[in-house]
Amino acid sequence: MDPVSTEDTTARRRGRRPAGQDTRTALLDAARAVFAENGYERATVRTIAARAGVDAAMVNHWFGGKEGLFAQAVLQLPFSPLELVEALRDGPDEQFGERIVRTFVTRWDGAGGTVFRALIRSVADREEAAAVLHDFFGKFFTELIRGLGSDRAQLRVTLCASQVVGVGMVRYIVRFEPMASAEVETLVAAIAPNLQRYLTGEID
Amino acid sequence: MDPVSTEDTTARRRGRRPAGQDTRTALLDAARAVFAENGYERATVRTIAARAGVDAAMVNHWFGGKEGLFAQAVLQLPFSPLELVEALRDGPDEQFGERIVRTFVTRWDGAGGTVFRALIRSVADREEAAAVLHDFFGKFFTELIRGLGSDRAQLRVTLCASQVVGVGMVRYIVRFEPMASAEVETLVAAIAPNLQRYLTGEID
Repeated sequence: MDPVSTEDTTARRRGRRPAGQDTRTALLDAARAVFAENGYERATVRTIAARAGVDAAMVNHWFGGKEGLFAQAVLQLPFSPLELVEALRDGPDEQFGERIVRTFVTRWDGAGGTVFRALIRSVADREEAAAVLHDFFGKFFTELIRGLGSDRAQLRVTLCASQVVGVGMVRYIVRFEPMASAEVETLVAAIAPNLQRYLTGEID
Repeated sequence: MDPVSTEDTTARRRGRRPAGQDTRTALLDAARAVFAENGYERATVRTIAARAGVDAAMVNHWFGGKEGLFAQAVLQLPFSPLELVEALRDGPDEQFGERIVRTFVTRWDGAGGTVFRALIRSVADREEAAAVLHDFFGKFFTELIRGLGSDRAQLRVTLCASQVVGVGMVRYIVRFEPMASAEVETLVAAIAPNLQRYLTGEID
């Protein structure tokens, strides 16, 4: 039996379950801690919900399950994947690269880099975490890039992923200067045109 | 006392020390294993030399110390850092990006991705491994990029590093298709122009 399920039950009996955005925030905080401690595979929805002091059903309600919770808590996506797609779409196609850099760097900076390190640890340790990332990118970004009218959408997705993940590695893990301390807009100016080429340019 | 030093002494007594290129190869193999098992910091020159069955002085002779051995064994550089610089320099400036992609991907592919995973594990676990990478890139690549006549050489180094490391993450760790199985020349065509922009283009 899961050692935290007692705490879980107690929390519910005492009516400590927070409502609405509080529940969502509590689950995100708990998920970050539990994914960082246990990696993706061993982290359970039950453990995370117990840590947050809410019912496990709330995970499905707010995030559609463990995968969605991982995407938002660990990848620091501002919304559900579907809402992220909408946010990235919200602007001129030729500024798509800019929006990608700004969105990811701002989110990760806000979390102080610890979230990115948890992500890399999860991915390096557990094939399932990599599979979640793959599903996420595959499902949403491929469709997005096809929407830009580009061929070879799946290769383009992986090219963008390589650049975005690489920035995270250099800024938060290896911490090479000056990238580690660069202003977000310095990175946007430097990197966005390269992403834009991956999104809509000639790649062969 | 280091538990392997007895083995080390025995190896030397028995005259098993291989000569020349054999010593070098034996040290590289041993270093890969020991760095993967222990991470950068806890791996010692003595342990690596003992595993290889050679005298620890050979590490200095062939690699200039633990840092150089790490650079060649784990980063899979084909030569010493200085020789790598020469190899990358060996061609037209406008194909510099191509040479970077081809050199790193070919080397890492040859090692089956395990070397890259050991690198990431080392870097994620130990600040010193990150410092070695930093020294390596800082010392050699900044100079190289200045040689191309580019301003902001250090930022350009980190931009190139982010793209190269990101390709490694996607190809060997997350294994997103189609990048994970793409031909080297497909990656060269897709990525080299972006590296070339980081090396010599407008980045602000």
